[in-house]
Amino acid sequence: MKLCRIQPLDFAAKHPSQTPAEVYASSHAGIIEGGVVREISGEIWGERKPTGQQWPVTAVRFVPPSWPSKIICMAKNYMDHAAEMNSETPKQPIIFSKPPSSIIAPEDQIVLPRISKRVDFEGELAFIIGRRCSHPRPTDDIRPYIAGYTCLNDVTARDLQRLDGQYTRGKGFDTFCPFGPVVETEHPSGDTTIETFVNGARKQSGRVSDMVFSIEVVFRWIAEAMTLEPGDLITTGTPAGVGPLVAGDVVEVRVGGIGSLRNTVVAPKD
Amino acid sequence: MKLCRIQPLDFAAKHPSQTPAEVYASSHAGIIEGGVVREISGEIWGERKPTGQQWPVTAVRFVPPSWPSKIICMAKNYMDHAAEMNSETPKQPIIFSKPPSSIIAPEDQIVLPRISKRVDFEGELAFIIGRRCSHPRPTDDIRPYIAGYTCLNDVTARDLQRLDGQYTRGKGFDTFCPFGPVVETEHPSGDTTIETFVNGARKQSGRVSDMVFSIEVVFRWIAEAMTLEPGDLITTGTPAGVGPLVAGDVVEVRVGGIGSLRNTVVAPKD
Repeated sequence: MKLCRIQPLDFAAKHPSQTPAEVYASSHAGIIEGGVVREISGEIWGERKPTGQQWPVTAVRFVPPSWPSKIICMAKNYMDHAAEMNSETPKQPIIFSKPPSSIIAPEDQIVLPRISKRVDFEGELAFIIGRRCSHPRPTDDIRPYIAGYTCLNDVTARDLQRLDGQYTRGKGFDTFCPFGPVVETEHPSGDTTIETFVNGARKQSGRVSDMVFSIEVVFRWIAEAMTLEPGDLITTGTPAGVGPLVAGDVVEVRVGGIGSLRNTVVAPKD
Repeated sequence: MKLCRIQPLDFAAKHPSQTPAEVYASSHAGIIEGGVVREISGEIWGERKPTGQQWPVTAVRFVPPSWPSKIICMAKNYMDHAAEMNSETPKQPIIFSKPPSSIIAPEDQIVLPRISKRVDFEGELAFIIGRRCSHPRPTDDIRPYIAGYTCLNDVTARDLQRLDGQYTRGKGFDTFCPFGPVVETEHPSGDTTIETFVNGARKQSGRVSDMVFSIEVVFRWIAEAMTLEPGDLITTGTPAGVGPLVAGDVVEVRVGGIGSLRNTVVAPKD
């Protein structure tokens, strides 16, 4: 099943200055089927009761499909990406986080920070928590805790990430966490592709089976430390091929069987 | 002015199983004056209109004074602490973050993780954002954006922090972010003391004037990267003297002129 959150285009046009959090609060959850978004009540991980309202996909704006209380990310979870960063493959998962203030919607603008000289794309497969989870037992199936899977661009100020050592600032700028638009409830197979395109040229290509630590291992690793809440966003790392974005670029993260996340890149505002 | 959020003790007794987020949602903002908490409407950074309701401080439970969308922390912001960690004093602020799931109230239990062998206290002065702020100009006064100042214990699984390199996991366990109870609106002077006591013995002692990067520098550094939202929590680093906590310990962070944050430490559950 393909889920999303949307604003009708006529509503969005009347509210051009909403913050991402305000956009989220005034959006509608829906199921995408045959070119139509059928509204469901509540959040995408709720009861999913149809309200009867629907819109053609051409009459909506897709917005972030959840508003996470935390966004937890994986460093170097593909061997070929660890190699291009001159790093060894980690012996255990290494996590970092991005703040909710970095979230933007599909088609929104990634704004280059005035204090960075090198901003990279990192296309990723992410998943959204659907049920609270803490300290799962080894025998617990983790899939019922996951609402679904989506596309994410872990935009990174590479120069500041390296300068700081800690990733919080370089990964945490406003507009550095586009994700969505489609959330697929089906667990992805190992063959699922993760690709990133810049201005139509393919820059990254990997498969779920290339991950050093699987979705399940990543989930358990994080849930052993932190209670996961519905809406929380976990992303699984990026394959090789990361590279720079410049103003005017169009960057697209495509995950096979799920969808495509597209954003444009603009110069610093001041 | 001293602000706080509270639950009346009789209410708290009837709702023993609330999560920290639920505790926050069912709490009341107030002004502390002469042994009494006078309720104000909304959040502590709002209009602060008295509602007429009040409770003796002995009849309330203090809860987290804000529910931040992000918690941003400073690494090594006191020279003597950087030295005891065998680190150089950083040439620029280094930030990391803790997730909201790590928040607990004053007097709540810090739970030692079953996967860590070394958990440390880190007493700190923190501040809470009162107004949205992004890219402040050098001429902007930052104080109007700060709702007030409070105590925070940046509890840290030292072994996991070192193992990972990134601080997100070692600093991010559930119960690792007690803060409060009192929020002082007055900007602290350079002489303000930050002290930590374990079982009554003083372990850490520093002053605001010992910080490598001042409150103002820290604020501007973070706001240049991330939009700060009302309620967001920023903490300014810990002085020398960090050390381990074991089950049964009582740890108290005291900030001069502001208040005291006390928590007990318990063994891992299960």
